[in-house]
Amino acid sequence: MSDAPSSAAAPSTAASGILRLIPLPGLPEIEPGTDLAALIREAAGEAGVALAGNIVVICQKIVSKAEGRLVSLEGIEPGDEAREIAADHDRDPRQVQIVLDESRRIVRRGNGVLITETRHGFVCANAGVDLSNAPGEDVAILLPIDPDASARRLHEALSEPPAPTPVIVTDTFGRPWRDGLVDVALGSAGLAPIRDDRGSRDRAGRELLVTQPATADQLAAAAGLLMLKSAGIPVVVVEGFPFEGDGGVHQILRDSSTDLFR
Amino acid sequence: MSDAPSSAAAPSTAASGILRLIPLPGLPEIEPGTDLAALIREAAGEAGVALAGNIVVICQKIVSKAEGRLVSLEGIEPGDEAREIAADHDRDPRQVQIVLDESRRIVRRGNGVLITETRHGFVCANAGVDLSNAPGEDVAILLPIDPDASARRLHEALSEPPAPTPVIVTDTFGRPWRDGLVDVALGSAGLAPIRDDRGSRDRAGRELLVTQPATADQLAAAAGLLMLKSAGIPVVVVEGFPFEGDGGVHQILRDSSTDLFR
Repeated sequence: MSDAPSSAAAPSTAASGILRLIPLPGLPEIEPGTDLAALIREAAGEAGVALAGNIVVICQKIVSKAEGRLVSLEGIEPGDEAREIAADHDRDPRQVQIVLDESRRIVRRGNGVLITETRHGFVCANAGVDLSNAPGEDVAILLPIDPDASARRLHEALSEPPAPTPVIVTDTFGRPWRDGLVDVALGSAGLAPIRDDRGSRDRAGRELLVTQPATADQLAAAAGLLMLKSAGIPVVVVEGFPFEGDGGVHQILRDSSTDLFR
Repeated sequence: MSDAPSSAAAPSTAASGILRLIPLPGLPEIEPGTDLAALIREAAGEAGVALAGNIVVICQKIVSKAEGRLVSLEGIEPGDEAREIAADHDRDPRQVQIVLDESRRIVRRGNGVLITETRHGFVCANAGVDLSNAPGEDVAILLPIDPDASARRLHEALSEPPAPTPVIVTDTFGRPWRDGLVDVALGSAGLAPIRDDRGSRDRAGRELLVTQPATADQLAAAAGLLMLKSAGIPVVVVEGFPFEGDGGVHQILRDSSTDLFR
């Protein structure tokens, strides 16, 4: 089952199969260089929330801020492509230049939306570059350079043997075919981001061929229910989930050769 | 905030902002014509789980079974298109015919996968037609004809004024760019499937322009953490979420004119 049964931390919850999603209040504004793990540990202690054996889901934005992934628009000199796209979509050309700098390629553009594939391989609007909740009017927040590595560092700093604390770093993405945003995992450590149920059997004994729940993304979406931007809750602790394995989100980014929507 | 404050059902949970996801055990195998609401109410009562003011998330498969959305492969006579596709992808042509019957059009096909737009407007593999956990080896389970109407009926049957019980009907879908499946909402009633935060402000007072969390899908994904097919848990109760509004999932299916991936 789990590498670290969460029953160690919360026996009654695990026994009944109940999951608890606990918002972590009390984090201060995050500055570049902040020791995020120390702040999370402190906030959890004050709120009486156990981390050992539980999963910590962290909004990308505070990870990026702590890692200094901030860019002032003032220093940006947009190139021709950025100017052209900005003119087409009524956007700030400096902002578009930042998006292009963070992208491997443009996947689609239209309706004022610029969907790119980031250098990590994520397909999302504006390469994940965001202006909301940024420290200044003209500062953009970029995604972490390596969100799996960010999650790994936080996982190691938060875990106290023998009950590790898996970490998921999340962001809100749009998606094709449906309006609205859902939180997805950008980085993970201390649990397998996808659960491989292939080869297991359904209740009728029939082999399940393609059931691979994207655990990290389901956890991200669950935590997202408590992470509304206006609420100022950037960290959610998940208690009672029988996590297993270990791996980064890069493992679940689909290879171009098997993707029908590149 | 909420039409029916969940604090009525669970004051301490709501006060701390904690969400609880509670698996509902003890449902029998569902037959066509089963009164699903009665079974859920009974199982909840036996498990001591409150429904009033909480959200009930139900796996599509038991809704489809209760509604008799089962098709025997034996009676299917595949047409030319189904035979051709089946030959290309090493599939049962009768199964492909059922998928085509449930679809408006084929969106993509390749790698043995047939992605279609269903008659409802969902874009997913095999039009949501499924053979796992079906009552017989050669029986396919189709999606409900109108999952919003299914959710509405269950919502009305489960709600006891003054604390309503919103209902979400879910299925597991794959998605572009990422491996693995996540649960999404097919139908909803008693809550708004999308939360419109446009016009609200972030912590720095800046207006949030495009923050529209797809609440129903986030709830579906959260419940999906407990709905692993092998576990046989088709119903999850969500306690402590401040739902608001009312509407069906058809509201969040993106119009073709604004969709860049049709």
